[in-house]
Amino acid sequence: MDVERFHVYDTTLRDGAQQEGLSMSVQDKLAISRLLDELGVGFIEGGWPGAVPRDTEFFQRARTELDLSTATLVAFGSTRKAHAAAADDELVRALLNAHTPVVTLVAKSHVGHVERALKTTLSENLEMIRDTVSFLVGEGRRVFLDAEHFFDGYRSHPDYSLDVVHAAVDAGAEVVVLCDTNGGMLPDDVRSVVSEVSDATGARLGMHAHNDTGCAVANSLAAIDAGASHVQGTINGTGERTGNADLITVVANIELKRSQQVLPAGALPEASRIAHAIAELSNLVPYSRQPYVGSSAFAHKAGLHASAIKVDPDLYQHTDPSEVGNDMRMLVSDMAGRASVELKGRELGFDLSNDHDLVTRVTRRVKELEAAGYTFEAADASFELLLREEAGEERTRFFDVESWRVITESRPDSEAVSEATVKLRAGGERAVVTGEGNGPVNALDHALRTAIGTLYPEIDKIELIDFKVRILDAAHGTDAVTRVLVEMTDGASSWETVGVGANVIEASWAALVDGVNYGLLHQDLDRLTS
Amino acid sequence: MDVERFHVYDTTLRDGAQQEGLSMSVQDKLAISRLLDELGVGFIEGGWPGAVPRDTEFFQRARTELDLSTATLVAFGSTRKAHAAAADDELVRALLNAHTPVVTLVAKSHVGHVERALKTTLSENLEMIRDTVSFLVGEGRRVFLDAEHFFDGYRSHPDYSLDVVHAAVDAGAEVVVLCDTNGGMLPDDVRSVVSEVSDATGARLGMHAHNDTGCAVANSLAAIDAGASHVQGTINGTGERTGNADLITVVANIELKRSQQVLPAGALPEASRIAHAIAELSNLVPYSRQPYVGSSAFAHKAGLHASAIKVDPDLYQHTDPSEVGNDMRMLVSDMAGRASVELKGRELGFDLSNDHDLVTRVTRRVKELEAAGYTFEAADASFELLLREEAGEERTRFFDVESWRVITESRPDSEAVSEATVKLRAGGERAVVTGEGNGPVNALDHALRTAIGTLYPEIDKIELIDFKVRILDAAHGTDAVTRVLVEMTDGASSWETVGVGANVIEASWAALVDGVNYGLLHQDLDRLTS
Repeated sequence: MDVERFHVYDTTLRDGAQQEGLSMSVQDKLAISRLLDELGVGFIEGGWPGAVPRDTEFFQRARTELDLSTATLVAFGSTRKAHAAAADDELVRALLNAHTPVVTLVAKSHVGHVERALKTTLSENLEMIRDTVSFLVGEGRRVFLDAEHFFDGYRSHPDYSLDVVHAAVDAGAEVVVLCDTNGGMLPDDVRSVVSEVSDATGARLGMHAHNDTGCAVANSLAAIDAGASHVQGTINGTGERTGNADLITVVANIELKRSQQVLPAGALPEASRIAHAIAELSNLVPYSRQPYVGSSAFAHKAGLHASAIKVDPDLYQHTDPSEVGNDMRMLVSDMAGRASVELKGRELGFDLSNDHDLVTRVTRRVKELEAAGYTFEAADASFELLLREEAGEERTRFFDVESWRVITESRPDSEAVSEATVKLRAGGERAVVTGEGNGPVNALDHALRTAIGTLYPEIDKIELIDFKVRILDAAHGTDAVTRVLVEMTDGASSWETVGVGANVIEASWAALVDGVNYGLLHQDLDRLTS
Repeated sequence: MDVERFHVYDTTLRDGAQQEGLSMSVQDKLAISRLLDELGVGFIEGGWPGAVPRDTEFFQRARTELDLSTATLVAFGSTRKAHAAAADDELVRALLNAHTPVVTLVAKSHVGHVERALKTTLSENLEMIRDTVSFLVGEGRRVFLDAEHFFDGYRSHPDYSLDVVHAAVDAGAEVVVLCDTNGGMLPDDVRSVVSEVSDATGARLGMHAHNDTGCAVANSLAAIDAGASHVQGTINGTGERTGNADLITVVANIELKRSQQVLPAGALPEASRIAHAIAELSNLVPYSRQPYVGSSAFAHKAGLHASAIKVDPDLYQHTDPSEVGNDMRMLVSDMAGRASVELKGRELGFDLSNDHDLVTRVTRRVKELEAAGYTFEAADASFELLLREEAGEERTRFFDVESWRVITESRPDSEAVSEATVKLRAGGERAVVTGEGNGPVNALDHALRTAIGTLYPEIDKIELIDFKVRILDAAHGTDAVTRVLVEMTDGASSWETVGVGANVIEASWAALVDGVNYGLLHQDLDRLTS
């Protein structure tokens, strides 16, 4: 695998950071750079020194704090101002001071943008490209050129867009990256434009795609088919508007579907871990439907297929999930059979293949509970507790609830308030505790924490982060059965539990109790194993 | 625009419902069907009657409750069991009993799946297809055939996969839909397979794509380029694993990038509103980066571009957002603009075009409320009440609430019970009433009915049939703002209202009160007009 033969170029830290509501500290950017290096990308575009103070600081600290093994760090910037010398341009100087082996320059390649946005002449724009590229090359930098709005520009004035490519190459640019800046292209058009430009200029070409037509990945592949040997993208497809091409999806398609290795051997199986870690660092909720690395990417509704999946999983998955460090997951759902319970157990680390009776008992209980309105599809934690209970484990319940009551009251001109009283026994002691909250579940949550906090101080680590409520039998409205899904986290991992009841508070309480028990149980297990 | 020349086929209610954690009530499915008809899709695949009880009920109720203008309703099912007659097959009978003009049959077209999953002979599988298709055609149904795992099957045994296409067509199937069931295909391979199959069989072909390689949209377009004239997908790309092709993205690409009209004139600008309403009904958080309809799809980080965008927005967007009912700025929802308020008003029977001030006031209030967490996309009734209030109508509030309190209690070995006390003034009288219920909202509902029942006996006709709860800021779990959507019916029609509050009971109460007021108002209006 030769990182120079094909460039896997990551711009998560620069173009990816353009995403609405996303902000990364210098610390985050350094941590993400290390993860990108683990993934084995060839180039990491770190930001725009000079223009963005945080990026200037990033490149300063990178010199001492980053020790990259595979990746080459890249500083991004713009061609010099009109009618001035690159050598005197403050922002061009800032690019030199970033001390990166590679500099990527963005340049206009669309007549309309030169005239109406940049407001200079077509010839001056070409001169800005020649001057800036050759100055940086003269200073010993490798230079890549991002040809902004290239595809739209080529459509309106192909000759000028080609002049831009020639100007860059003649001045010493190694790669000219054709950018679909507005993201409106479709694969066929990308393929034809890239091959025409390749034939007309012989330049080494790259592709920078956005997802506005839902085709960023396909457009990147089309460009590669047409001869591009440099592809830009971001981890998790972050970016402005609909985002950039998802680099992991592009690379996984190239390696797994086209059998062309573009990452170091053994790197791709790290993709899921790295994608999730970068999502965490960027404070993004991971997208469950994300190709290859999403938590649902290899999830199957059990039911009919389960037995066939046991026989031959390849019948039902387009690739082996371990190729990208993901796992096949079985969703225990309606029509749950023995096969799916067994598969689900294995997934949670329980080998049930030799315990026929246990599988029978668990399957029966799952079916009973599902008939009553439960669903374990999005509630692995409740399923695991059920499994452990049926397996006869004792340490699954950390307290016994006696009774609870919650009052919610609304007075004129004041927000409604809730007050909950919980009576339970924990560790032989009886507790009667009252908690307040801005909602009934919140009040119950507070009361429960107070009631068991002394005995189980680790409860402080456990937080309720989401709950969802569904009415199951719409025909009867509020008379109907209610299903509540609760999600909790201990900071390191998160888990979901389910509760069902005619009363929404009762259902919420059941899910809440399951969630707390699961959290305490796993903190116990962690202690035992560490 | 001829819906028969090109089939826009929606499977949100069937394959889309396979998504992890997604569950739709029959009520949801009926509401979504109406929205799909507004979007102008040609076909709505409603579910699998016989196999899924909820779907059986959906088709029963659809006959009386659905009045579709553009779309044709489709029942989905499987070919008959091996070694039996289609006429005697219980599930095939269930398809007939769904009484839909079109039936889509799924059939195996992959040798490995016939032998290892279906566990029958290749010839019997062909016989199952011939028998089931011709039986249904004989019963007067139009039949489409979903050829499951077609692309993987064609790769391993092309001749057999072609036999399947021939068998279906010879037996009378109108369209054979090539399914990338495992979602592992890339556009080039799709294009070549579809054109080979088209040349070899001359059959009318369709495409069913999944997004496991991030290419579902591009694969759909590639199939169409290769001659497919039927495309399947789901709204918001919901579906198993990474989801199905996003039907709106596919259609928008065809209409806006290929200038080929496949929806009724004027339908595409409704796409954003409809996509968001369906997300609400499915209790899904809308995906901000979704192409065309996402809240970020046309959002720009001002910065450098700002002034240039003012001069010439087309320099920075790949299409005019109004083409898909989206907006260049960040939207809280599709309602947030004057134009959409006017449009929505007209839809509800109010001509606002001559009342500039009213539109301004309504738009301002909608924006304020949306900033507080309200959404009117799936709550027309609340929007209408707001509109009537701003228009100065007096008859929109039938009672004034003073205060309310609800207690929910759970004792050992007994179901939780709720008791609500409501204090209000109606028709000059003050009422202090207590109601019981099996949940807090149910108890409040009962108390409210008792309090106003004497004055407004027509309340008995109004029933609460569904409510949904959404936590808006998951980061804070139960501390977060809660949004409740309530659906009510008077038997003849149904309407949805929205309530927001830090307290889930408070939010539910607000939606409940809106819903009752709307119901009473319209019974008044009906009396006046009849």
